[in-house]
Amino acid sequence: MLDELHEECGIIGIFNGENVCRNVSMGLYALQHRGQESAGIAYTNGEKVRVRKSMGLVSALVREHNPDELKGFAAIGHVRYGTRDSGSPANTQPILVTCKWGYLAVVQNGCITNACELRAEMEEAGHIFQTSSDCEILLHEIARTKADCLASAIKTVLAKLKGCFCFTFLTKDTMYVARDGFGFRPLALARLGKSWAVASETCAFDLLGADYVRDIQPGEFLTIGREGILSESFIQKNRKAHCIFEYIYFARPDSKIFEQSCDKIRRKMGKKLAEECPVEADIVIPVPDSSTTAALGYSQASGIRFEIGLLRNHYVGRTFIDPTQNVREQKVRLKFNPIEGILKNKRVCVVDDSIVRGTTLKILTKMLRDAGAVEVHIRIASSPVAHPCFYGMDFPSPGELSASAMTPVEIAKMLGVETLGYLSVNGMRECTGDPDSYCCACFDANYPEYTGRENEKNRCG
Amino acid sequence: MLDELHEECGIIGIFNGENVCRNVSMGLYALQHRGQESAGIAYTNGEKVRVRKSMGLVSALVREHNPDELKGFAAIGHVRYGTRDSGSPANTQPILVTCKWGYLAVVQNGCITNACELRAEMEEAGHIFQTSSDCEILLHEIARTKADCLASAIKTVLAKLKGCFCFTFLTKDTMYVARDGFGFRPLALARLGKSWAVASETCAFDLLGADYVRDIQPGEFLTIGREGILSESFIQKNRKAHCIFEYIYFARPDSKIFEQSCDKIRRKMGKKLAEECPVEADIVIPVPDSSTTAALGYSQASGIRFEIGLLRNHYVGRTFIDPTQNVREQKVRLKFNPIEGILKNKRVCVVDDSIVRGTTLKILTKMLRDAGAVEVHIRIASSPVAHPCFYGMDFPSPGELSASAMTPVEIAKMLGVETLGYLSVNGMRECTGDPDSYCCACFDANYPEYTGRENEKNRCG
Amino acid sequence: MLDELHEECGIIGIFNGENVCRNVSMGLYALQHRGQESAGIAYTNGEKVRVRKSMGLVSALVREHNPDELKGFAAIGHVRYGTRDSGSPANTQPILVTCKWGYLAVVQNGCITNACELRAEMEEAGHIFQTSSDCEILLHEIARTKADCLASAIKTVLAKLKGCFCFTFLTKDTMYVARDGFGFRPLALARLGKSWAVASETCAFDLLGADYVRDIQPGEFLTIGREGILSESFIQKNRKAHCIFEYIYFARPDSKIFEQSCDKIRRKMGKKLAEECPVEADIVIPVPDSSTTAALGYSQASGIRFEIGLLRNHYVGRTFIDPTQNVREQKVRLKFNPIEGILKNKRVCVVDDSIVRGTTLKILTKMLRDAGAVEVHIRIASSPVAHPCFYGMDFPSPGELSASAMTPVEIAKMLGVETLGYLSVNGMRECTGDPDSYCCACFDANYPEYTGRENEKNRCG
Amino acid sequence: MLDELHEECGIIGIFNGENVCRNVSMGLYALQHRGQESAGIAYTNGEKVRVRKSMGLVSALVREHNPDELKGFAAIGHVRYGTRDSGSPANTQPILVTCKWGYLAVVQNGCITNACELRAEMEEAGHIFQTSSDCEILLHEIARTKADCLASAIKTVLAKLKGCFCFTFLTKDTMYVARDGFGFRPLALARLGKSWAVASETCAFDLLGADYVRDIQPGEFLTIGREGILSESFIQKNRKAHCIFEYIYFARPDSKIFEQSCDKIRRKMGKKLAEECPVEADIVIPVPDSSTTAALGYSQASGIRFEIGLLRNHYVGRTFIDPTQNVREQKVRLKFNPIEGILKNKRVCVVDDSIVRGTTLKILTKMLRDAGAVEVHIRIASSPVAHPCFYGMDFPSPGELSASAMTPVEIAKMLGVETLGYLSVNGMRECTGDPDSYCCACFDANYPEYTGRENEKNRCG
Repeated sequence: MLDELHEECGIIGIFNGENVCRNVSMGLYALQHRGQESAGIAYTNGEKVRVRKSMGLVSALVREHNPDELKGFAAIGHVRYGTRDSGSPANTQPILVTCKWGYLAVVQNGCITNACELRAEMEEAGHIFQTSSDCEILLHEIARTKADCLASAIKTVLAKLKGCFCFTFLTKDTMYVARDGFGFRPLALARLGKSWAVASETCAFDLLGADYVRDIQPGEFLTIGREGILSESFIQKNRKAHCIFEYIYFARPDSKIFEQSCDKIRRKMGKKLAEECPVEADIVIPVPDSSTTAALGYSQASGIRFEIGLLRNHYVGRTFIDPTQNVREQKVRLKFNPIEGILKNKRVCVVDDSIVRGTTLKILTKMLRDAGAVEVHIRIASSPVAHPCFYGMDFPSPGELSASAMTPVEIAKMLGVETLGYLSVNGMRECTGDPDSYCCACFDANYPEYTGRENEKNRCG
Repeated sequence: MLDELHEECGIIGIFNGENVCRNVSMGLYALQHRGQESAGIAYTNGEKVRVRKSMGLVSALVREHNPDELKGFAAIGHVRYGTRDSGSPANTQPILVTCKWGYLAVVQNGCITNACELRAEMEEAGHIFQTSSDCEILLHEIARTKADCLASAIKTVLAKLKGCFCFTFLTKDTMYVARDGFGFRPLALARLGKSWAVASETCAFDLLGADYVRDIQPGEFLTIGREGILSESFIQKNRKAHCIFEYIYFARPDSKIFEQSCDKIRRKMGKKLAEECPVEADIVIPVPDSSTTAALGYSQASGIRFEIGLLRNHYVGRTFIDPTQNVREQKVRLKFNPIEGILKNKRVCVVDDSIVRGTTLKILTKMLRDAGAVEVHIRIASSPVAHPCFYGMDFPSPGELSASAMTPVEIAKMLGVETLGYLSVNGMRECTGDPDSYCCACFDANYPEYTGRENEKNRCG
Repeated sequence: MLDELHEECGIIGIFNGENVCRNVSMGLYALQHRGQESAGIAYTNGEKVRVRKSMGLVSALVREHNPDELKGFAAIGHVRYGTRDSGSPANTQPILVTCKWGYLAVVQNGCITNACELRAEMEEAGHIFQTSSDCEILLHEIARTKADCLASAIKTVLAKLKGCFCFTFLTKDTMYVARDGFGFRPLALARLGKSWAVASETCAFDLLGADYVRDIQPGEFLTIGREGILSESFIQKNRKAHCIFEYIYFARPDSKIFEQSCDKIRRKMGKKLAEECPVEADIVIPVPDSSTTAALGYSQASGIRFEIGLLRNHYVGRTFIDPTQNVREQKVRLKFNPIEGILKNKRVCVVDDSIVRGTTLKILTKMLRDAGAVEVHIRIASSPVAHPCFYGMDFPSPGELSASAMTPVEIAKMLGVETLGYLSVNGMRECTGDPDSYCCACFDANYPEYTGRENEKNRCG
Repeated sequence: MLDELHEECGIIGIFNGENVCRNVSMGLYALQHRGQESAGIAYTNGEKVRVRKSMGLVSALVREHNPDELKGFAAIGHVRYGTRDSGSPANTQPILVTCKWGYLAVVQNGCITNACELRAEMEEAGHIFQTSSDCEILLHEIARTKADCLASAIKTVLAKLKGCFCFTFLTKDTMYVARDGFGFRPLALARLGKSWAVASETCAFDLLGADYVRDIQPGEFLTIGREGILSESFIQKNRKAHCIFEYIYFARPDSKIFEQSCDKIRRKMGKKLAEECPVEADIVIPVPDSSTTAALGYSQASGIRFEIGLLRNHYVGRTFIDPTQNVREQKVRLKFNPIEGILKNKRVCVVDDSIVRGTTLKILTKMLRDAGAVEVHIRIASSPVAHPCFYGMDFPSPGELSASAMTPVEIAKMLGVETLGYLSVNGMRECTGDPDSYCCACFDANYPEYTGRENEKNRCG
């Protein structure tokens, strides 16, 4: 994808192993694409829970707090993508507190849509808030819930939450895991020797040599302790609502997401796109790296030759910013360079996974033409993004979404391309093999769950 | 003083001025001797309260968060000395929360002696704790107190606290100031143009050109708002218990402490010491810089010439550590060098403000002899420290206090000096001009207030 | 490529433009793959030459020395890959000196093979050396050469140098450019508005919107001043000896190298490989990202389906090191993850650009099998690397080169693969279209130029 | 002293010991007052000479390059005060080169007054310069000198140098030490077990437990090797010209300088000042810390009571800068605070060591009056500084020297004091016990040595 679209956070937990802090850190490397703002880890030695966090990449965490020196038998970890408002050290995770249940650390991804209401209620009831994180709300609720045990308190509180969430909790001796009733975000369970592991994506398991067991079920609550693993349900919803954007863009292709290979579904989308929106072209090229799989699918279904026509420079970080148009183009060129030998005198079909704003794609189109492409056709392996997400994706405001104001024909004109084709919503759904189990709200405004949008602020964390 | 003895924290607040963040930072420079572990500031622009904190010296705070760019009309600041256990970023101050009263920031010095009980109670009642700071306990209590206004809630909570404390609170539009009923630690009020200022020591006022008005009274609660200043009392104790160690060592000599010039009282102690423990010597030298005032007093009362016989190197920071005795001596030499020309063939009377462990003084004595001193007499401008402090001084454990296990004669022998003399407790008390208003518990074990010592952990912050 | 093989340095120069320091920095981003140890820039405002350097990536240079604030009309830049011995700040480039010719800055890539002799001679003649860089030798020679002008002095000195080199010099008003007589490394010339630019690879020109003009010729010496550009020859060799490894691995595929598209030649090598070493397999996969082009060629020539079967994690930096085998595998897994859905039950042909040590490829083979590959065939789009390079490539010592001790059959066994095939040296040469103009010494030990190998140390920089 | 006046650099060398790098670092702590811009160390293990340098204080050097891990049997060290022009990492010392004599490292303090001429000559002769340091000139000269041994080459070169200098050289097996023919700056020799040590001030020896032997003589050249120590003379001047400002301000009072106790001479100056410029006052106060010794002398000779009336805050670093007068005063207040109890209603005699600009003293005078002083009398323990120094002191330009444009009466008026008195030049000279052996050129414009002032740039390093 050309526009930078971010999901919020990746989580991991490992219970009952050796080198758990090292392994959690390694797993965070595999989840790094889900958050680059901060990284953190909490671990227990059976008596105390400790936390270590760093701003920036996992490599900063590893450098500043050598995980090999953190001794514990269970640990949880987090990588965070923060919105502009929330980028303060106080909001990094894990959050660790003490309360009547003793030490309690938590990591989360997703977005609680009734967070504002819960927070207002709790402030009124006499609680203080030190962060703007959803987790703090949750922890307050758990601490003040009257229950005969922590597990029972957590379940009671989870049942009150609306929105999209995956949680992993760590106490001095137990790990608890939960996923919302719609199953918006992925969360998987694995076996690593005598350890249990959970992670947002299975690519973390591959790195550790852990064996994928199954997904945490929507509404499921797991208790993982020395004595074993216990599965319960804290809520039942009448449908599933997996985020289809995980297949489209977020998840790594080598992960198994919602119990299917992400690569396989993504490829199907490319093939379906070739079926729905054929093209007369000489070559198919991806916008590396995220749309390579879909482009391969498109190529295979259409029989048009697959090529690498754009080179991506992975060394580019944040660079100097200048408001002029000329420099905006330079920023795109810093990241992508067309390969003239491939493109010259070719009718080029560019496959991308999605269009958010479209501004970068416009610049890229010009670059392809400058490199000799005689025609530029854009094929998008998803539908037009026209509506906000309230369940954890950090889309720009609706006014900035190209598809919320323009028809595909108008967008094609704006981009300056010969043709532009999108995959249909039904097409996307079909590729998943289970059309009714997915949330496509950003495409069709069909929100499965309370959005909280009437509340002025919809904080995510 | 040779052994490093630390008090915990200095605080400052300024209400209703221009450049309040700059001025609070400047004031923190003046209070830097009260804490070097972290520095922080909270400020309000009338709508929001914001916080900025840095590990290390005030200069780090100024470098990282240019106070000239922080716009507000009121601000509070803090320098912290942390014990080994508490040295984490989470425990730095100010602590800022939101609660039913809106934004609430707080800075504190001192030590709540019933903190453990209160925290346990509150955890049981369903609250979570993210830090080990006393302030968090206080904020929870304030947030959950049912009262018709914040001021009333704060007063109710303050009345429940035991121990030693000075607080300054900041909301979006009001500053609240409080001092415990015994008046353990100093806290002074000043006028700076149309602004009100409070600070742990008046030297901060001098720097700002503010005019000292009076001390905050023991048990007093001030409300400072746009409409003016209101004084109330939240508790009444039957006596005062000012910490006499402020005069002996902590406070800067240029500060007015407990409404008297610190320099003047410290000098009186030197004179009284000369009276109680005369000596036959050629010169009187201080251990720079803290005992210079007492040594001048001793010299003036005894008629023995004052000299600078030890040079202090102010550039020395933390350096490499090595367990051998030879190196321990080198560490002392890094800080202090005897001036041979002054000491050679002299009978030297060294005046120091206090002895805690005594190990450094022993090395120094050897250095003085090596530089040619023919006799070394030690005079201490306070009594033997033999008991722990529960009100905010970070003494070593009793077993490490030389005076808890040895008589002065034994200590003199250990130090290898000709004679050793201490000021009597009564002598110290007399020098203050108001003998019954001071806490001398570390000298005489006469604790004026609940110590909480039966509770395993006695956290200070 | 799996093993990390590094060339030494990329250079760039721009004369007579606006924002030259910004543009040089941007160009260095494009050349970042040629060196990540340090980055630097020298620039002139017509009176003084100044230098700015940083350890690490170009992004560090940009962050520490905002190029937008460096005012000049001409600038040169450098990215460096340093060997272990030379990784000190003193060896970073550009090197700037003053001498009888005034200010003189220089950037270099390559390796002077008679550096030791020259240095010894000059030390004997009374010169001092502050670095271990070849550049310093060159600058000494230029400064002490009796000539009527700087250009003449430089040419005289260049003619004495043996080995592989590209230089760009900057004085207060002129830029000089030179390339060795064999043309080992690429160096190209471009026009950017009224400016002239030179760079190691043309991808830097693309980023800047500069138009490629031609390569600097072997033995050519350019003088670029306000009055225009002058081409001279400082040496004539009887042949060219372009480094074929630039096509195989070093250069970016989007660059024009030795006046041909790198992508095109690299693809031809893949096709030729398919011809020379066919395979019975279900899919062809590259080792991303460097061998993707060759793999596409192999797929196109063989008709075997191209797939992305290994995912590369670009977030991985230097991580914690541990000597156990288990961890070495984890390090490879941190970087590459096989996609099970692609590999399962497949006969897999892995195309890589070259094998140096082979240790990583062995681990990768195991990972592919674990992911379900039923056969693993390795095809290498170059010949076995069996000999050291003296012209700027940082190969491991011969003992570590798998091909110097083992036959391909033995290597295949060591790797644990079904079959292993290499492209022949003649095959490689043919793909270039000009077989006799290339140096293939690391494959065939046919060294076109003095290697200096009899000298104990062969310093490069 | 109130105005910040800096000398350039302190040096140290230790030959033939254990832990030489640690000991050299420790010694640098003791010399830190002579330079705070950078610190460095060079050491030899008998085969190679290595260098380690850091910007900032010695504590940065120790933190970044643990001296306990640097293994050598001889080492030299340097602390640098750099002028604005020269503050680049390239100019830090030691400078280490290789040349026909092998490894050669050097540290220097002072200023070569014919540096420009020598550099121009050498550039013409074909040498390059990478720094603006005098040392580089020297090293070039040594390297190109035809001689039968290094010692002979160094001596030949030293004889050509004009100005003020102390050098210590280190080769792989020998240390060479030299001091200019006038003996401008101090340089002392000591014995530390089986080691020889040299240092700018003897306070470094005290820290190490080394025994002071004697000063290096003006024009002396020492060769210190495994076989022993050899003293030679490389030049003879007809007089000595010790810098009297070392006694007045630069040197630490606990050092022996020019073979006399600095404390003793500084005290004599205070006494002499009392004789020459008596005052009617109630108290004598120093400007801490540099003038404490002179103030004690003044008090003892005059019988007026010595007091500490100004408190110095040692925590203040570089802080935010603002051009308004109000803030300039705040900067002075950050550093010094008057003690009201001491000053109130007193006639105060302030003793300072020297006046350079006088601007700070003016602010201080106002602060003293604000604190209640009824009269302020200034007594300066040196003469009016009216002329530039060409031998290593970094005075402001003559236009900024208060005494170059105003008479003492005018200065007193500018400062706003009742009376102002300076010590006479003859008075100063007498106090040294050897009036004709001192350079007082900054007071009397009597320059003993070539100043190089006709040369536009007079670089120091």
